[in-house]
Amino acid sequence: MKDESAAVDLKSAAAAEALREVRSGMRLGLGTGSTAKEFVRLLGEALAAGTLRDIRCTTTSNATEEQAVSLKIRVFPLGEIAPLDLAIDGADEIDARLRLIKGRGGALLREKIVEQAAARFIVIADESKVVGRLGVGLLPVEVTPFALDVLTKRFTSMSLAPSLRMRDGQPRVTDEGHRILDIRIPDDRDIADVVAEIRDHAGVVETGFFPREATEAIIAAAEGVRRMSRPLSS
Amino acid sequence: MKDESAAVDLKSAAAAEALREVRSGMRLGLGTGSTAKEFVRLLGEALAAGTLRDIRCTTTSNATEEQAVSLKIRVFPLGEIAPLDLAIDGADEIDARLRLIKGRGGALLREKIVEQAAARFIVIADESKVVGRLGVGLLPVEVTPFALDVLTKRFTSMSLAPSLRMRDGQPRVTDEGHRILDIRIPDDRDIADVVAEIRDHAGVVETGFFPREATEAIIAAAEGVRRMSRPLSS
Repeated sequence: MKDESAAVDLKSAAAAEALREVRSGMRLGLGTGSTAKEFVRLLGEALAAGTLRDIRCTTTSNATEEQAVSLKIRVFPLGEIAPLDLAIDGADEIDARLRLIKGRGGALLREKIVEQAAARFIVIADESKVVGRLGVGLLPVEVTPFALDVLTKRFTSMSLAPSLRMRDGQPRVTDEGHRILDIRIPDDRDIADVVAEIRDHAGVVETGFFPREATEAIIAAAEGVRRMSRPLSS
Repeated sequence: MKDESAAVDLKSAAAAEALREVRSGMRLGLGTGSTAKEFVRLLGEALAAGTLRDIRCTTTSNATEEQAVSLKIRVFPLGEIAPLDLAIDGADEIDARLRLIKGRGGALLREKIVEQAAARFIVIADESKVVGRLGVGLLPVEVTPFALDVLTKRFTSMSLAPSLRMRDGQPRVTDEGHRILDIRIPDDRDIADVVAEIRDHAGVVETGFFPREATEAIIAAAEGVRRMSRPLSS
């Protein structure tokens, strides 16, 4: 219980630091997941208190939209306010080059669409998400239902051990009507190579690998909040 | 009227030649469009006449499935009979390397999924589809609805002149629930480069560029039917 509340505190600390980057008049992209949720909560407080005003937002999931609307944050379709000034979202894994694995919450496609439409994308996370090598956990792959069976067989033959994401005993249906296959990156392979290979298969809509979307990261640890920037070489 | 019936005759000639490749017991993928429709019609006749038997098929569109079922052809979900022995389908443009543009009929995603699941994919077409350089007409790009507006803006800024495919006054919805943006390949650019570039944009589900799916082509002209094979180098 103590650990859980400490984790929420870290997420909240990262979110608070990200909020310092928001200026009145900005167009924002709001992420999905427990850390993004903290940011949306704090943004709602700042708007209610009047310290920020005239903020237009777009969201990466129906869940985030519901939270934002409940906090009286103004939400627009992406197309109406793009390009965005700033997107803020969490991640499941972050490496030293600011490459990410995202989408364990299931919103990877809308997240990538929104974050590619933003001039800056700041990832917010607690220290546990920073990894030496991406692929500690599974990589979500969003697929079109028509291809689900053939892609499952093919990924199995490629030693990627696909598993169909479930929810309440049924295959999880994404906000865009697709399914999710979670795959394991083999220890002897680089995630970028695996992603390049699977993307050639028709029916793969998107993956949770975000190689270049993030421009900065704010990482919260027990000893304080630190920032990471994208290395100049990437 | 004479020209139109001559065109149907050519499609039918290509389809008849392709039917000679079908053996009893095969698992087939059936394409979509006017030339594929001729093949399905002839396949139905051969099954009814008993010259072929025990053929299991999967289809690339709801329209083809309806035609096949009406002809008592046995249709299965792709996952149940994959991998396929043979897929037969038309194309909108074919170059000398057997690279294709497909999808002006709107079925590009299912077509690519089915044709990638087949050991052989024979393209059938009349001579008018053979081009010196792909991109004489437009290239269909299937996109997820959430990204439609931002991708339209972005493709416009990339000088690709996107236009939203319509049907009966409404945006065309594909069998998989997506939309289609038809883009123009600039004269000074190679289609493969343009496709590589747009595929990096989240929300692009698939394009109608088929660089390596076709293994053979059967081309019908007024002077007769000829075959094309994939050059060894590609």
